Amino acid sequence: MTNLENTLSIFALGGINEIGKNMYVVQYEDDIFVIDCGSKFPDESLLGIDLIIQDITYLQQNKDKVRALIITHGHEDHIGGIPYFLKQLNIPVYATELTAGLINLKLKEHGLLRHTELTIFHAASKLSFGNVDISFFRTNHSIPDCVGIVFHTPIGAVVHTGDFKFDLTPVNNDAPDIHKMAEIGKNGVLVLLSESTNAERPGFNPSEITVGGHIEEEFRKAQKKVFISTFASNVHRVQQVVDAAQKTGRKLALLGRSMINVVSVATELGHLRIPDDMLIEPYEIGKMDPEKVAVLCTGSQGEPMAALSRLSSSNFRHVEILPDDTVILASSPIPGNEKNVSRIIDNLYLLKANVIYGSGGSTGMHVSGHANQEELKLMLTLMKPKYFIPIHGEYRMLYKHKQLAESVGVDRENIFIINNGDVVDVDHTKAYQTRRVHAGRVFVDGLGVGDVRNIVLRDRRVLSEEGMLIIVITVSKTDGQLISEPDTISRGFVYEPDAKELIKEVNEIVKTTVTNLSSIHGSKRTAIRQSVKKSVESLLFERTKRRPMILSFLIEI
Amino acid sequence: MTNLENTLSIFALGGINEIGKNMYVVQYEDDIFVIDCGSKFPDESLLGIDLIIQDITYLQQNKDKVRALIITHGHEDHIGGIPYFLKQLNIPVYATELTAGLINLKLKEHGLLRHTELTIFHAASKLSFGNVDISFFRTNHSIPDCVGIVFHTPIGAVVHTGDFKFDLTPVNNDAPDIHKMAEIGKNGVLVLLSESTNAERPGFNPSEITVGGHIEEEFRKAQKKVFISTFASNVHRVQQVVDAAQKTGRKLALLGRSMINVVSVATELGHLRIPDDMLIEPYEIGKMDPEKVAVLCTGSQGEPMAALSRLSSSNFRHVEILPDDTVILASSPIPGNEKNVSRIIDNLYLLKANVIYGSGGSTGMHVSGHANQEELKLMLTLMKPKYFIPIHGEYRMLYKHKQLAESVGVDRENIFIINNGDVVDVDHTKAYQTRRVHAGRVFVDGLGVGDVRNIVLRDRRVLSEEGMLIIVITVSKTDGQLISEPDTISRGFVYEPDAKELIKEVNEIVKTTVTNLSSIHGSKRTAIRQSVKKSVESLLFERTKRRPMILSFLIEI
Repeated sequence: MTNLENTLSIFALGGINEIGKNMYVVQYEDDIFVIDCGSKFPDESLLGIDLIIQDITYLQQNKDKVRALIITHGHEDHIGGIPYFLKQLNIPVYATELTAGLINLKLKEHGLLRHTELTIFHAASKLSFGNVDISFFRTNHSIPDCVGIVFHTPIGAVVHTGDFKFDLTPVNNDAPDIHKMAEIGKNGVLVLLSESTNAERPGFNPSEITVGGHIEEEFRKAQKKVFISTFASNVHRVQQVVDAAQKTGRKLALLGRSMINVVSVATELGHLRIPDDMLIEPYEIGKMDPEKVAVLCTGSQGEPMAALSRLSSSNFRHVEILPDDTVILASSPIPGNEKNVSRIIDNLYLLKANVIYGSGGSTGMHVSGHANQEELKLMLTLMKPKYFIPIHGEYRMLYKHKQLAESVGVDRENIFIINNGDVVDVDHTKAYQTRRVHAGRVFVDGLGVGDVRNIVLRDRRVLSEEGMLIIVITVSKTDGQLISEPDTISRGFVYEPDAKELIKEVNEIVKTTVTNLSSIHGSKRTAIRQSVKKSVESLLFERTKRRPMILSFLIEI
Repeated sequence: MTNLENTLSIFALGGINEIGKNMYVVQYEDDIFVIDCGSKFPDESLLGIDLIIQDITYLQQNKDKVRALIITHGHEDHIGGIPYFLKQLNIPVYATELTAGLINLKLKEHGLLRHTELTIFHAASKLSFGNVDISFFRTNHSIPDCVGIVFHTPIGAVVHTGDFKFDLTPVNNDAPDIHKMAEIGKNGVLVLLSESTNAERPGFNPSEITVGGHIEEEFRKAQKKVFISTFASNVHRVQQVVDAAQKTGRKLALLGRSMINVVSVATELGHLRIPDDMLIEPYEIGKMDPEKVAVLCTGSQGEPMAALSRLSSSNFRHVEILPDDTVILASSPIPGNEKNVSRIIDNLYLLKANVIYGSGGSTGMHVSGHANQEELKLMLTLMKPKYFIPIHGEYRMLYKHKQLAESVGVDRENIFIINNGDVVDVDHTKAYQTRRVHAGRVFVDGLGVGDVRNIVLRDRRVLSEEGMLIIVITVSKTDGQLISEPDTISRGFVYEPDAKELIKEVNEIVKTTVTNLSSIHGSKRTAIRQSVKKSVESLLFERTKRRPMILSFLIEI
């Protein structure tokens, strides 16, 4: 695969020029290390697709060299692809305790628990593979138990930050280990890979703890039930909801499968502390004094099947939002989700609830989990890398991150903005990007992994916008003449009761076309089908300015 | 239609619980007045639809009473439906000068110029129809020549604000006529209909003139060409771009059809003043010193076919964005457009341009054209209506607007949050909402108006997510036995070269089903087709967890 066996190579198989399906690779000679294995949700152009994962052809071709899949934290865009990955390439997985707990939920679902080697490490752990030692440093993000990774290779250290922010007054004392980062930087960093999600945003994020104060205030003010919705994986925020409920004398119900799952895993592993008598079941809510109830639920991004959406349309078993209940959306809509979130807010107002919402943390009920510009500069300053590769972001974010790196003194020529698949090769004296490995995306649709390709999506696109028309033509085997009337059906094209005339015209033009053609060519299948398609196509376009997909069947008897 | 002939009735046929397709109706006895006739762009769930307009069944049923279509201003959500409306109901249209100019562009396109009675009025004009006199007041918005409307009926005045903000330092002295509004309020307003777009936003909008300062500053700083993109209809902003170009010694090129159209209409009518030698053609840009060039273009919302998008992908004849050119997006992405806008910004950075962008006016390059909370309260205070109907907004906006009205003293019982079609009847002593007229949406798709209905969209939805499978079965007329192999084609379902086994299984199950059935029932068409569909459906779901649309044809010979 490569004639650069003696160098260090770094590349991404996902996560660059996109948000989602993160996967980064560090290769030193014959040892390949994979960092993260996320999934990505499709945008609306990928019709019917459930999930997008990485194309790992390169890793399969080099499977004897792949030593480990190391996971930085438990978010979907870092762990969501693991079951699909392991079905293709069963290698050992390494993760911290909480991350491993969340991965196990997935492995169970996919029936992979017994076949997977999942090793738990801690921020102080050290791993060793041939020439490469691996150590970690604790970071802070919107999920606990996050780490950055240091690969100690013979030619220098490669640091991958994972997702991070600097929260200096963290919930549960889950602080970033700045001293260790400083030490790593002092010892020399050859290459830094750092996340770029918020590289467009100036300043320094407020601490997660500020959210807790706002939650408690609203819990105190509320005269009736309080509903609060946030990402289940934001365990620190869940802790603050628990604390606010306790301080204001409310019991807490949990709604939504992922909320129940994450709370159970996080409690078991000690990342979440819930008083013994705090939790109640949904069916108990109706029997209690509304002032004594808080409900923590999923669906803060407007997901149509999640708890908040169902609550807002009065469609949740045992639980009802009533006039003057308070509903808090402790979140900021991710681009693309605004409309779904707005619809929920409309419905909550229709239920006469008091709704607390807003984007970008304007209500104080949300802070981002990703480093803003000053935090990114702090990381760059701590690590003072020789080479820098901005990762985890769309192009404009990588570009802004590059500018930030230059501003704190990284040489412009030593910064590499890459694409998925672009390889940065590093040796003692220099780094260069001249070659690529195969990278791409694979679609998951139902049980199918990779069986929906671009051509299938192109057909779905045409069908979705214009619909289709199917024509069955029955002709004589001997002379190609029509034996019966053409049989025509449309779907997604026109409302047929309104279009009887048009369908009649279609059948007429089909008859004429077949009759004319068969007298010349006899029963040449392809010629007949192509001519029919062409003449029907132009008729329909003239009449409707639409181009439905036209399929014809020729039955010869 | 109604047994309330002696009252005043007010309702909406579009614009409530939505942004778009505005149409409000004021009826006094036998005189019906229609206000605005906008279109709405479909969201992504309305697959393949080009435009949404109002269902005007009620007006058609009462066409002898419909006196006038009066337009408040020239935005698409207020004029976009006019050609479709006039084809159904040819009534006189009234508009201010610029609005009429923009309407004429549409009438021309639809071949309606000669058949339409379009009357131009001014803010000082008075119209009279039987018992009802109509006057206007000048407002300020993100397009010039806007008005609010006053219907003077025998039982009191009905005021419709149109879209508005209060810009007290307006470009071109295009100020809202606050004195006239105060007088209207002083004389007594029975019912106020006021727009609610920004009812969620606190404060008072900055003046459009602040944008001009920022534009000029960037024009001055730019070392190379400057590109600036904004809504073509924002003539005041276009004026400020012209002014900035003049002050900084740059010539100006216009790119994009709507920019050229609007500038031409607005210049002709005196709403825009461009120095004689200011404009250049696109092909001249390349020949000039980049420091002497500014380009004003369409596409600030990321529209894929508009000028900015094509420029960003180096796909615009004669014009190229080069390294260190400046590109300004003088806009804020409308929810739903963020992804397209982001893609353009990524591409502009790839071209090494200096890009100035940001949402919500964070760069100073955009202000909203809609009244914020303090401005809405100012309008309510000026008008001090007895009854209030918040219009032009989604539910949460109407709800917040209701709260604002209460805060400035409107009686809670006198505020009506309605749906499209809900009628507010008003007499001397009271107002009440007890009845509805027919209201709805009509889809425009190509040349078809109304021929795509919900069932067609449902089919498009299934086809778009799961694709389809078509099976042609040829059986004997006498005993219903198969005569040849089933013929199976799929589209949008699976990549067929990967799915040969599956298709083979389908054909097998079809054969078995037909054979079994025909031995019992003979050739009962429906029974055979239903059984085939059912057995194929469950096979495919088991194998793929997908449910493509299955269509079968039964040919009997």
